[in-house]
Amino acid sequence: MNQKDWPDLAGRIEGRAHVLPVRVYFEDTDFTGLVYHANYLKFCERGRSDFVRSLGVSHKELFSSEDGSEQSAFAIAHLEIDYLRPAHIDDVLEVVSTVGEMGKATLLINQEVRRGDTVLARLSVKVVLVNSRGRPMRISALMQEAFRNFSAVNGGHPKPMP
Amino acid sequence: MNQKDWPDLAGRIEGRAHVLPVRVYFEDTDFTGLVYHANYLKFCERGRSDFVRSLGVSHKELFSSEDGSEQSAFAIAHLEIDYLRPAHIDDVLEVVSTVGEMGKATLLINQEVRRGDTVLARLSVKVVLVNSRGRPMRISALMQEAFRNFSAVNGGHPKPMP
Amino acid sequence: MNQKDWPDLAGRIEGRAHVLPVRVYFEDTDFTGLVYHANYLKFCERGRSDFVRSLGVSHKELFSSEDGSEQSAFAIAHLEIDYLRPAHIDDVLEVVSTVGEMGKATLLINQEVRRGDTVLARLSVKVVLVNSRGRPMRISALMQEAFRNFSAVNGGHPKPMP
Amino acid sequence: MNQKDWPDLAGRIEGRAHVLPVRVYFEDTDFTGLVYHANYLKFCERGRSDFVRSLGVSHKELFSSEDGSEQSAFAIAHLEIDYLRPAHIDDVLEVVSTVGEMGKATLLINQEVRRGDTVLARLSVKVVLVNSRGRPMRISALMQEAFRNFSAVNGGHPKPMP
Repeated sequence: MNQKDWPDLAGRIEGRAHVLPVRVYFEDTDFTGLVYHANYLKFCERGRSDFVRSLGVSHKELFSSEDGSEQSAFAIAHLEIDYLRPAHIDDVLEVVSTVGEMGKATLLINQEVRRGDTVLARLSVKVVLVNSRGRPMRISALMQEAFRNFSAVNGGHPKPMP
Repeated sequence: MNQKDWPDLAGRIEGRAHVLPVRVYFEDTDFTGLVYHANYLKFCERGRSDFVRSLGVSHKELFSSEDGSEQSAFAIAHLEIDYLRPAHIDDVLEVVSTVGEMGKATLLINQEVRRGDTVLARLSVKVVLVNSRGRPMRISALMQEAFRNFSAVNGGHPKPMP
Repeated sequence: MNQKDWPDLAGRIEGRAHVLPVRVYFEDTDFTGLVYHANYLKFCERGRSDFVRSLGVSHKELFSSEDGSEQSAFAIAHLEIDYLRPAHIDDVLEVVSTVGEMGKATLLINQEVRRGDTVLARLSVKVVLVNSRGRPMRISALMQEAFRNFSAVNGGHPKPMP
Repeated sequence: MNQKDWPDLAGRIEGRAHVLPVRVYFEDTDFTGLVYHANYLKFCERGRSDFVRSLGVSHKELFSSEDGSEQSAFAIAHLEIDYLRPAHIDDVLEVVSTVGEMGKATLLINQEVRRGDTVLARLSVKVVLVNSRGRPMRISALMQEAFRNFSAVNGGHPKPMP
């Protein structure tokens, strides 16, 4: 068996957003009974990974520069998170990701962690495309185009699904 | 949206085994490029959690003693794991869980972490039902029955799915 | 043996700052060879925990309200982090914590993760004192006094140690 | 500041054992109020890392084969752990490591996680020296000699310190 047998494993595109389900397990909680604050960053990183995966572009292709040669990767430059409500063991959460502002080398991704219609946390992460020596690189036109399709009209946080 | 929208989120029962898909994300790897050894235990704990969930018995009911009153939980007493082959970023793994020997208060769960037909790790975990003071308790007949249906004939490790 | 045998285990007070050493282990890195971004939040939470410990006030005393009765705890409301330079396996890092603005129920803690004189990450976390029902509570005069001694003059980020 | 300012950061050699102190933080616990079972493996990996560090041999020298040329590393082949008593938030634990049986390419390391005189968990891990293609390699005479000095007489678990 493999990924084709688990069609939802990488989440789904819904409108201009990517949605990934995340189950809360023992490992995600701490002794206060709630999800440990740093683990929301893990949930959101899973969402971003599967967002890119869902674009149908391999990491290699997507992350190649316009000249197609140099090795590159997205590095996180800045991250902000508001904790609005706690999550608990066994909860089914959804990580909803949209694209915000795009620069020549940077990309803002806005994410929400929700339980049903309730937003539990709201995160903005600014990533920078860098080469193997850590220098910013121009994001390729192909990649810019792919992300622009997921850019919320107002560049803001994802809207609740209807 | 919630769990009904993600039918595979808690994995599936296949024959006498429970199968849970697990994606390898950044958080699971270490600088050697492979999955960090302790994270296989997390994958297997997710499998056991969803295995119990798939039995259709709530934690509360399942973990109540025969007299139905005392609070209890499964504690891990012993764990063994063989690391056979490494896993990598982006891999889709499957955690396959079956039930081994059952005692009055103990339960052996055998698990494999697979990538396709390849077994990457094999784990046996002995859990003990304990009350709130940490004393072993008799596993209820209801729970014994539920687990017995997932006991491999030879009490051994799960067999490859046909 | 116990904590008295490990005098530096909870770090040290230096001027108006608390400094905690943190070693980078396998568990902290990911396959890119660098420290995983969410783990800086773990390092900083360790720093805050030991900062409070170093104040010589027990969690119980510190976190009791002025009337001394109600159970309470600090919850994280907002967190921002700038990633400036990467950290690697085996690095010895230092988490430097100072106190920023204080409100009736809130406290801003500014933290830096450094390697020698180099700042690798800069974090600000806003915590709120809440009661057991999640309602904000007034921070006790005792606790306000304790934290005020660690407030940087300009309420800003910790200054490099001389 | 750096490691020389934190003399105990990598633990200490005591007799034939290496001892590393480990503080239990929020991140280590789960909603049951106890330390999450997989995190004992993290504590023990920290102990092994600092054990090797304390031998005064760099990873590069130690892990070079007899001919001094081929790149190599220790991979975990098998691991067993007994969970005897739980650990809690704020606990100061000690990871005590000794060397058990040594083969041409393998090494057994026995470890205990203790709180004061109480053993909370007992772990045995079998590591194999492998080259970059995953093939077992002969452990160098230099490395065998270094580890033999930490071999408990009976190849068994570490004895309580007097």
